[in-house]
Amino acid sequence: MNMETIELEDIAKEISSFYTEKKYSQIKSILTDINPADIAVLFDEFPPERQILLFRLLPKEEAAETFVELDNDTQEAFIRAFSDTELREVLDELYLDDTVDIIEEMPATIVKRIIKNTDAQTRASINTLLKYPEDSAGSIMTPEFVDLKKNNTVEDAIKRIRRTGVDKETIYTCYVTDESRHLIGVTTVKELLLHDNDDKIEDTMETNVIYISTHDDQETAANLLSKYDFLALPVVDMEQRLVGIITVDDAIDVLQDENTEDIQKMNAILPSEKPYLKMSVFETWKSRIPWLLFLMVSATFTSMIVNAFESKLSALIILTSFIPMLMGTGGNSGGQASAVIIRALSLNEIDLKDIFKVLWKEFRVGLVCGITLAVINFVKIWFIDKQLLGMEDITLKVDLVISLTLIIETIFAKVIGCAFPIFAKKLKFDPAVMSSPFITTLVDAASLLIYLWLAGAILHI
Amino acid sequence: MNMETIELEDIAKEISSFYTEKKYSQIKSILTDINPADIAVLFDEFPPERQILLFRLLPKEEAAETFVELDNDTQEAFIRAFSDTELREVLDELYLDDTVDIIEEMPATIVKRIIKNTDAQTRASINTLLKYPEDSAGSIMTPEFVDLKKNNTVEDAIKRIRRTGVDKETIYTCYVTDESRHLIGVTTVKELLLHDNDDKIEDTMETNVIYISTHDDQETAANLLSKYDFLALPVVDMEQRLVGIITVDDAIDVLQDENTEDIQKMNAILPSEKPYLKMSVFETWKSRIPWLLFLMVSATFTSMIVNAFESKLSALIILTSFIPMLMGTGGNSGGQASAVIIRALSLNEIDLKDIFKVLWKEFRVGLVCGITLAVINFVKIWFIDKQLLGMEDITLKVDLVISLTLIIETIFAKVIGCAFPIFAKKLKFDPAVMSSPFITTLVDAASLLIYLWLAGAILHI
Repeated sequence: MNMETIELEDIAKEISSFYTEKKYSQIKSILTDINPADIAVLFDEFPPERQILLFRLLPKEEAAETFVELDNDTQEAFIRAFSDTELREVLDELYLDDTVDIIEEMPATIVKRIIKNTDAQTRASINTLLKYPEDSAGSIMTPEFVDLKKNNTVEDAIKRIRRTGVDKETIYTCYVTDESRHLIGVTTVKELLLHDNDDKIEDTMETNVIYISTHDDQETAANLLSKYDFLALPVVDMEQRLVGIITVDDAIDVLQDENTEDIQKMNAILPSEKPYLKMSVFETWKSRIPWLLFLMVSATFTSMIVNAFESKLSALIILTSFIPMLMGTGGNSGGQASAVIIRALSLNEIDLKDIFKVLWKEFRVGLVCGITLAVINFVKIWFIDKQLLGMEDITLKVDLVISLTLIIETIFAKVIGCAFPIFAKKLKFDPAVMSSPFITTLVDAASLLIYLWLAGAILHI
Repeated sequence: MNMETIELEDIAKEISSFYTEKKYSQIKSILTDINPADIAVLFDEFPPERQILLFRLLPKEEAAETFVELDNDTQEAFIRAFSDTELREVLDELYLDDTVDIIEEMPATIVKRIIKNTDAQTRASINTLLKYPEDSAGSIMTPEFVDLKKNNTVEDAIKRIRRTGVDKETIYTCYVTDESRHLIGVTTVKELLLHDNDDKIEDTMETNVIYISTHDDQETAANLLSKYDFLALPVVDMEQRLVGIITVDDAIDVLQDENTEDIQKMNAILPSEKPYLKMSVFETWKSRIPWLLFLMVSATFTSMIVNAFESKLSALIILTSFIPMLMGTGGNSGGQASAVIIRALSLNEIDLKDIFKVLWKEFRVGLVCGITLAVINFVKIWFIDKQLLGMEDITLKVDLVISLTLIIETIFAKVIGCAFPIFAKKLKFDPAVMSSPFITTLVDAASLLIYLWLAGAILHI
C-alpha cells in the first residue's frame, strides 16, 4: 500500500516511542517494511539529529535508495555527519547518474569529500558526466548499461547479464555494439527469454535503433522515451559511440519538472525546482517579484492611453465602467490561445512550419468567439445593465462601441496569443516565459486603443 | 534516430513514387525500418484510401502496433475498411487495455463488430474492463501479467515466463499470488536472473507490495508509478485479488494528459484530448467560449462598482488611468499563487491539512511582494508618470492611494489565490477548473473596491 501522510505520522509516533525505549531492532523491522521513497518522507517528521540515527539503522542497499530520495539540504547534512566509511558505503550502492545529480547540488567541500571517497574509475566517469551541459541528455544518463556483441549466443548473453547485472540501472534493454563501441542494435531480456539458448544476439536484435546525442536536450530525450514507450534510451557521443542510457524513471522526472516549469513560466513565476513547502518566504518572493514588477511598470502604457483620452472619458464616464471587463476578456482570450499553443509546442504537436495553419485557425476561432461574446454582451448590457441595474448613460451607440471592441480585441488577442509563442520558439527563446507576460501587456494596450478609438469614431466625443 | 517531421515528408515522397511504380516490396522494406509510432505520423501525409493500402503492407505485429498509435478517427475508418479476418488479426495482436481504449471511443456498430471478432474469453475480459469507471485505475489496467506461486523455483518461473511471456504486456515485474489470487509478493526478472535456479520464488520476492484498487483514480496510479520508479503497478479488486497491472508507458500518458488538462483548465478552457491541429474551429470555439462568456458576464460586478463611484471618478479622472494596472497586478499576483498551489496539489506536495501553513506563507509573501511593488510604484509614478510624462493631476495623496491599494490587493490576491484551490479540493471539485476563473473575478472586484474606498478615505472625494 502506498503511505498516506496520516499513516506516516502514526509510524513516526511508533518509531519515536520505540526510540525512547531503545528498541532499535523494532525500528529496524518497521523501516525495512517501508519503501525508501516513503522513508524519505517519514524523515521529515523527525529532527535532523534523529534522522541520521534512523538512517544508520537501515540495511546498506535500502540506505542508499533512501539517500537518493532525500532533498538536497538533508543529503548535505547527512554527508557532513557521515564518517568516510559510511560515505563510501552509500556511494558504492548509488547509480552513477544519481551520484552526479547529488554532486551538482553540493558545495565544493562536500564534492571534494565525495570525489576522495570514490575509486579512480568511478571518479573518471563522474568527471565525464559532470562536463555535459546542464539539462542535456548527457547530464542525466548513466554509463551503467548492459552491452552485448552480435555474435554472442542468447545463453552467453544471459550469463553476462547474471554476472554483471546487479550494478546496471536496467538490464531489460540490452545494447549491441561493435568493436569500436558503435551502437548497432538493441534487444531486450524479453526477446532473449523468448529465443532459444543457441540463437545469436544478431537474430534477436532490432537494428533500427532510436537514440539521442549527449548534447541534445533532456526534454527531447524524455519525449522520445514517452513517444516510443521505451524503458531506456541509448545516448551516443559525437563519434556515435554508445556512452550511456537514460531510464524511463528519470524521463518521468524530467517530464514532470518541465511541466512544472512551464506552468510556473506561464504564470509569470521564475522556475524553481524546490517543492512549495520547502521554499522560504524570501525564495518565494524572489521567484515572483521580477515579473510582477515588470508587468506593473509596463502597464504604464495603459495609464498613458487612458490619460491621453482623459477629456473624452470624463465626458462619458460610463465608458470607464467597462474597461475592466474589456481588459479581462482580452486577457482571457489571449491566455487561452497562448496556453494551448505553448502546450502543443512542448508536446511536439505543432511545429514552426505550422505557423500559418495556426494563425488562420486562431483568426477564425477569434472571429466566432468575438461575435458570440459581442452579441450576448450587447443584449446583456441593454437589458441587464441599462434596464435592470439602471445605468442610464448607456445608449445604443455606447453598447455598440463596447460590443464591437469585443469582436476586434478577441481576434487580436487570439492571433497575438498564438503567434507569440511560435515566434519565441523560432528565435530560440522559451515559448512559455516569453509569451504570457508580453501577450497580456500587448493585448491590454491594444484593447484600450481599439475601445477609445471606436468611442471617438462612433460617439464623436 | 527519431523521425523529424521533415524526414518523414521525404519518406512519404519516396513511398509515393514507389507506389505509382507499384514497387510494393520496396515500400514494405521502408516501412519495416520505421518505428510504429512514426508510421502513424507518416500516414497523415497520405489520403485515407492510400493509408489503408499502406497499412496492409505491414507485417502483422507491426500493423497492430501501428494501429494503436493512430488517432480514433483513422482507427474507425480502418476498421470500416477491414474484412473480418483482417480485424481479427489486428485484435489478436493487441494488448487488452489497448483494445478497451479503442472500444471506448468507437460508435456502437464498430464495437459490435469488434466484440463479434474476439473469442469468448477475451470478450469476457473486455466486458469486465469496460465496467470500470472512466479515469479509474481499472479502466487503464491490463489483465495480462505474469503471476507466480511462492513455492515455484526460479527455474520454473523462468520457464513459465518463456512459455507465456509473449502475450504479456510486461514480463519484468512478476506477481506472486496465493490460491485465492490474493497478491502476496512481487519479484522481478532481474531478481530471478541474479538468483540461483533452485531458489524459491519466496526468497526472491518483496512482500511489502505497493498496489492500487480498481476504483482508485488513474492519476493516483500514475503518481505511484512515478514516485516509486516502478515499471508496473498491480491493481486489486474489492476482495484484494490481483486483477491487472498498469504499465509505466500508460502512466506517462496519464501524467501528460492530466498535465495538459490542468493547463487547459487553469487557462479557462474546457479540456479536450484531441491534439490542437485535429480540432475543428467549431470544436475549439466550443472548448473556449463557455468560460469567456461566464467571465465576461461576471465582470458585471466590476462595471457596477465603477458605475457606483462614477461621480468620484469623474471628479478625479486620473484615478481611472491606473485601474488597468491595478487589476493586472492583482490578477498576476493571484494567478501566481493559484498556479503554484494547483501544481503542488497535483504533485501531492501539499495536502488539505497544510492549509494554514500555506495561508500563513502566502500572507507573508503577499506582504513583501505588495510592499516591494508599492515602493517602486510610488517612486515610478512620481518621477516618471508625473514629472516625465506630465500627468499633472497626480498628487502625493493620489500616489499614496495607488501604492496602498497595491499592498492590500497583493495580500488579498495571494491569500485568495492559495485558499481557493485547496477549498475546491476539500469540496471534491477540481482545483484547476474551480480556481483560476473565480479568483480573477473575485480579485478584480476586490481590487476596485479597495482602490475606490481608499480614494474616498484619503482624497475625500
